[in-house]
Formats: sequence, C-alpha cells, structure tokens
Amino acid sequence: MDIDIGNALDAVAAPGVSREYLDRLDRRVADAHERIERGMADDEFGYAALNLPERVDTAAIRDAVAPLADSEAVLTVGIGGSALGAATLTDALDTDGEAYYLDNVDPAQVSQLLDDLDLESTALNVVSRSGTTAETLANFLVVREAYADAGVDWTERTLVTTGDSGNLRDLADEHDLPVLPVPDGVPGRFSALSTVGLAPAAILGIDIESVVTGASAERESLSGSLYETPAYAYGAITYALAARGANVNVVMPYHETLETYAEWYAQLSAESLGKDGLGQTPVRALGATDQHSQLQLYRAGPNDKLVTFVHARDGPDVAIPSAELEGLDYLEGASLGELRDAEFEATEASLADVGLPNVRIEIERVDAASVGGLLYGMEAATVLAGELYGVETFTQPAVEWGKEVARDLLRGADALDETTSLRVTRE
Amino acid sequence: MDIDIGNALDAVAAPGVSREYLDRLDRRVADAHERIERGMADDEFGYAALNLPERVDTAAIRDAVAPLADSEAVLTVGIGGSALGAATLTDALDTDGEAYYLDNVDPAQVSQLLDDLDLESTALNVVSRSGTTAETLANFLVVREAYADAGVDWTERTLVTTGDSGNLRDLADEHDLPVLPVPDGVPGRFSALSTVGLAPAAILGIDIESVVTGASAERESLSGSLYETPAYAYGAITYALAARGANVNVVMPYHETLETYAEWYAQLSAESLGKDGLGQTPVRALGATDQHSQLQLYRAGPNDKLVTFVHARDGPDVAIPSAELEGLDYLEGASLGELRDAEFEATEASLADVGLPNVRIEIERVDAASVGGLLYGMEAATVLAGELYGVETFTQPAVEWGKEVARDLLRGADALDETTSLRVTRE
Repeated sequence: MDIDIGNALDAVAAPGVSREYLDRLDRRVADAHERIERGMADDEFGYAALNLPERVDTAAIRDAVAPLADSEAVLTVGIGGSALGAATLTDALDTDGEAYYLDNVDPAQVSQLLDDLDLESTALNVVSRSGTTAETLANFLVVREAYADAGVDWTERTLVTTGDSGNLRDLADEHDLPVLPVPDGVPGRFSALSTVGLAPAAILGIDIESVVTGASAERESLSGSLYETPAYAYGAITYALAARGANVNVVMPYHETLETYAEWYAQLSAESLGKDGLGQTPVRALGATDQHSQLQLYRAGPNDKLVTFVHARDGPDVAIPSAELEGLDYLEGASLGELRDAEFEATEASLADVGLPNVRIEIERVDAASVGGLLYGMEAATVLAGELYGVETFTQPAVEWGKEVARDLLRGADALDETTSLRVTRE
Repeated sequence: MDIDIGNALDAVAAPGVSREYLDRLDRRVADAHERIERGMADDEFGYAALNLPERVDTAAIRDAVAPLADSEAVLTVGIGGSALGAATLTDALDTDGEAYYLDNVDPAQVSQLLDDLDLESTALNVVSRSGTTAETLANFLVVREAYADAGVDWTERTLVTTGDSGNLRDLADEHDLPVLPVPDGVPGRFSALSTVGLAPAAILGIDIESVVTGASAERESLSGSLYETPAYAYGAITYALAARGANVNVVMPYHETLETYAEWYAQLSAESLGKDGLGQTPVRALGATDQHSQLQLYRAGPNDKLVTFVHARDGPDVAIPSAELEGLDYLEGASLGELRDAEFEATEASLADVGLPNVRIEIERVDAASVGGLLYGMEAATVLAGELYGVETFTQPAVEWGKEVARDLLRGADALDETTSLRVTRE
C-alpha cells in the first residue's frame, strides 16, 4: 500500500500536523521500530502476529480444507477476530462459493440462515481460540443439530480452528475432525493472516498464497522512518491527529467489497488502542454512498475527525450507456469507475477545502496480494500507534467484566445495580 | 417505542445530565413542540414529513406496484434517502422475496449483481426526487441495458418514484411506466414513511399499512413534555449530552435485522444536525457482535460517547441444545435469545459501571408496527434536536460543493488545488 498524508498537514488541516513535528516524531518512530523488531525477533505476544507472513503454513491449510473443497458455501461460526479477518478476505475477493458468518447470537438470523442453506453442500468452519466462547459454542450446537435434522453427517463437513485444549479441541479429537491450530502469540484481531483468516478463504478458492505474498512485501517495507514506511506513516499520523483532537477516524473505502475491511480495521483499532482514556473511535463509512449520508456532517460538523480514504488505482469498469439526458452531459462517454473516482477526488478536496484532515491509502487493485498487503500494513500501523500512545496494544481487559456479568445473569443472578432507570413511555 | 434515559443522568454518567437541567430543558421542549406543531399544521418544508402517517396513500402504492406483484426480487436504484428507508424496512421485516439496492457507483458490484440476478423475475425500482442524481441515473442506464441484453422488456418491470419533472419523469411518461410521486416538503432522509420507503416493501409483501399505523401511534404521542414523549426524550438527551462532550452517538441494535436501521439513523442525524460546527457523529454498531470489537474502546477509551441501545422485548427464539460442555454450564437450558439478552443487559451495566452515558430504546418486537413507530419516533427526535441546537434541520448545503467539483472533473477540469501531497510509498 501507499499513503498520502499531505491533507493531514497543518498547511491544509486544523487539526493538522506540522512538518517539524513529524520530523521530531520520526525519531520516536525509529525507537518504536526497534522495539517492534525486537518483539518480532523474540516472538513476543502480539508482536508475533507481524511474523505471520513468514510463518503461516499455507500448505497445511490447503491439506486441512481439502476434504471440503467441493463445498458450495462455507458457514463460519466465530465472533470478533475469529470472523472479521476471514470475512474481509471473502467479501473483498472473488470466490467460487458463498461465505456466511454467524458472528452474533440472534435467534431470528440463525433460523433464517439455516432455512436458506443447503447444508449438504455447506462446509462448517468453527473458530474459537479458547474453545469456550459462549456465542460461538451456542451457535455451533444449534447448527450441529440442524445438520443432524437435515440428515447430513456434520462430522464430514466440519473444520475446527482452535487452540491446544478446550471444548472444541476435545470435540475435534472425539470425532476425528480436521483441525487447524490458532497460532501462539497472535490476538484474535491480528489473526487475519493466519489459519483463522485464511482457511475459509482457501475453501472458497481464494489465492491465499498471494495474500501472504502481498503481506510479506509489506513486511519487507518496515523501516525506522515514517517517511519510508507507509504503515508507520499511517500509525504516526493517526496518533498525532488524535493528540490534536481528531477523536474520530472515519474509514471510508471507495469500493463496495472493502466495506468489511472497514469493520475489520474498526476492531483492530478499537481493541488495540481504546485504553487509558485514549483511542480514536473508528467509524465505518463507504464511498460514494456515504457522501449522500455523512458528508454534510464531515464538512460542516465539528472538526474532531480524520477521514481515511481507501482507494484502488485500477480495477474492472463498466461503461455508462449513452442517453443524452438533460443536465447529465458529463456522464456521456464516462464509465461508472470514472464517476466513482471523480466523486472520490471531489470529496477529498471538499474536506481539504474546509480543513478537515484526511489521508489517502492506495492499493494497486482489489486483489489477493494488495489486500494481504493492506491488512498487514494496518496491523503494523496499529502496533506502531500503540507504541506511540504507550498503551498495552495486545490486551483487551475491558471486555471481561461484561462477560462475567452475562454469565451470572444466565445463572439466575439478580438485576444489576449499576444502572438507573428514567423511563418515558407512550401514553 | 419506549425509552429509558436513566443511565444518561449525572447520577450514573459523566458526561451526564442532571434532573434539574432536564426540568429546565423541558420548558424549551414545550416551545419546540409548539414550533413543530405549527410547521406540521402549515405543511412547512421538512415538518411536513411528520404528517406522513396521516397523508401517505398506501392504496395508491398498492395500485402502482400491482403489476410487479409476481416479482421474486426488487432491485432498487437510488442513493442516500432514496434507498435507506426502504432498505431499513426490507432488512428488518420478513419479505417474500429478495431486496437489492444499488446505492453506490461501483463497477465491480454492479457487474456482480447483474450476473447474479434473474432479471425476468426482478422488479426494477428507480428512485430520485430530482430525476437527475448522477449515481442513480448512471446505474439505471447500465441496468436498463442489462435487461435489454437479457431479452427482458424493462418497461414491463420498472416502477419509478420521482418528482413532478426531470429525466425520470420524462422517461416514465415516454414509456408509460407506473410512477409514484415523491411527496412535497419531505427531504430524502425523512421519506421512509412515504412512497419512497414503502413501495419496495409493498412489492415484497410487507404489511405497509401496519408500518403506517405504528408511525401514527407514535405521532399521537407527541406532546409538550419530554417526560411524556419518548421521541422528545431521545432528542433532548442527545442534545444535552452533545453539549457536554458526547461528540459520538453509537447506535447499537441487539437485533441483526436492525443493522440497516442504524445506517438509516446515521444519515438522518448526520445530514440534519451536522451543521454550524455541531452534530454528533453517528456510529453504527451491532450487539452482541461489536462487544467483541468495540466494547473495549467504549469502556476504556475517551468519555466522548453516548451509546444508544435498541432492543425488542419479544421475538422468535431458538433453544440451545444440551451438550454439558466444560465451563459452559450456564448455557444449559438457555436459548439464543436469553444469551443475547443477558449480554445486552451486561453491556448496558458495564458502560454504566464506568460512567459512559447510555440510553435504551425499546420496541415490542421487530414487526411492521413497531418498526414504523421507531422510524417516526427517530424522525421526531431529530426534528426536536434540531430545534434545540438551533440549526436548519432540513437542508444539506455542505453536500453540494463536492457534487459540482465531481461534475467539473468529469468534464475535464484540472486537478484541484485544495489538496496537498506528502506521499509515502514502499521501497
């Protein structure tokens, strides 16, 4: 990936970053890079994720999914990092089957999905590092029963990706299921380039080797200067802008199939950096659609935002048929891609025009290698930002409290006294 | 809808609102309500939208869509308010066919969709008030050609919803297409309860009369006090919290089929209130999924957020099959709905526990009447908030600048000088 941070400089934007500050920050980037390289060399928890392009065993993934290669669809049961990396790949790239994700606990959704699917030709991909994630296990039990009710042997169609022990590992052993390991030292939100993200993609015919090659190239680019490393330039500019009041980071791809990428990045950023009162709020947007929804706010609302555009330089196109419609002369001879790109450039300029900081991330095209590079680059950017913020990038302690409360409620505990009620109801 | 704003009071939250302030604010709510009632009585631009439940002619909609009643799918071509209201209804409610939306200009998406669709059984629903929206007309021209290429007479399968004049009106007249009017005085983002939102829903078998009945009941509840009007309670509390630093409003339904509702609200809020440096940034989230993605940030990041939960008290459920899994005793005998509700209550408490303001919007169930009421309630809440902010709720001036620039770019204008470049590329 390439990046252009010109519209985040104080010559254009407020909040904006001065060149002098960036030069000083670059010294901290050099130190942080040393820390990151050390973490990678020692395979420290979290930092190990940045070694995945060199470590992931795509041949083992191909072997594990081989029995499921004839599937017309893959149903992944997993939540958070166990689903979002895979979903980013299968939504962004061409597949030779359908990808479905049960990444919520919603009875209406589960019933609808199980009604619609032909389970005979659907691979079941169950993902949980601990093997004890409540939502995932509950959904798995429901889906397993649906396979049985449909007269399909679920053990013939199931792949499990999990850690060394736990319920899922036991189940896989008991039923002799193909099982892939979740790599050590890799938090869920950093697992897109591991077995977790790549296995469903492989079943659906995605060139996972190119995904990894693209990530490797990005890994090669890591250096001690933000001026030479696109990923670090992004990590550094988000950090610097957050410190200057850009509490919101709008991630706005101009490609429909990258919508899930924005979801993935939102998890990566929020869980890694949302700590100690810090962390930008990621907002998932989509160009050109959200020009007709959110642009009014971005241009005329509070200057508390960075907008991150994601754009591919090349890709398929469709000509707009000639129609000589009144007032639409500018569409004559144009294509949908040209219209989209003109809207993208105009939106970028329209934010610069009012001084709202924005950044352009560019990839060559929405293909396996470029998307692999993009995912790796954003992971490196987030790790760098964590070093600059001084937070514990790889933990998510604030998620645990609610999990325990939910368990207690299901066990019959009383209502909670943290909350207060002031109800307003219709007459 | 009902609302509980207890967790937004300063007894629980910081930022939070005191009861004394709410009492004072309630006097301004009474004045604002008078203004709104006057606007409705005079059918003033924008305020007229709040009269839709009494004005919309569902019989005329039924007549116009009758020729398309045998469709197995509806492809709506429209962007922003021309798509989001309809999509909210067709995603939230059971339909007897598939709903597709071309609400972007993306060549890859358009090609894929036209490859997948059986155009013979697909109704084409083209929506643009002006009849000149570039994205919509461009997509329409491409889709029309695809019908012709497939040997299907598009004029037999097309419904147009547009204003009194413009390209689309001319086309409808020329080809004798069924055409529905966009009502006067109703901005796109307030048009869900008009022809614009209801026509595609009607084709797909949704009980649009119940949607309108639900909206009517909500309309009846409007009164001069926030303590008696759920919609005004929401508008008032968002306003008060924004003034106290809650720049972000996370809209988090706990029902998968309400995900599009969060998109719809995001447009309604951003375009109506994102003005004069004001306006909360709407963030679309989804429970329980985003507990595994965003909750870390909400609980441990900056206290610059309101979280708005949306929850239905009743609905379908699915039992979790017994499995006696280690450490998962609490799932024994439980259902997916109970697990979801426990997670919802735990998340609500976990935010209250750290003083992050949150609000609970409740509907009876995700059905036509409740969703109609919810949409109307949020529109009224937004109009009330606009009165309190003192902004021009019904315009969107900041969107125009970029549109003109995009047109100029397509006509061959030079690159823009608003932007600056600082590129970082891979070695």
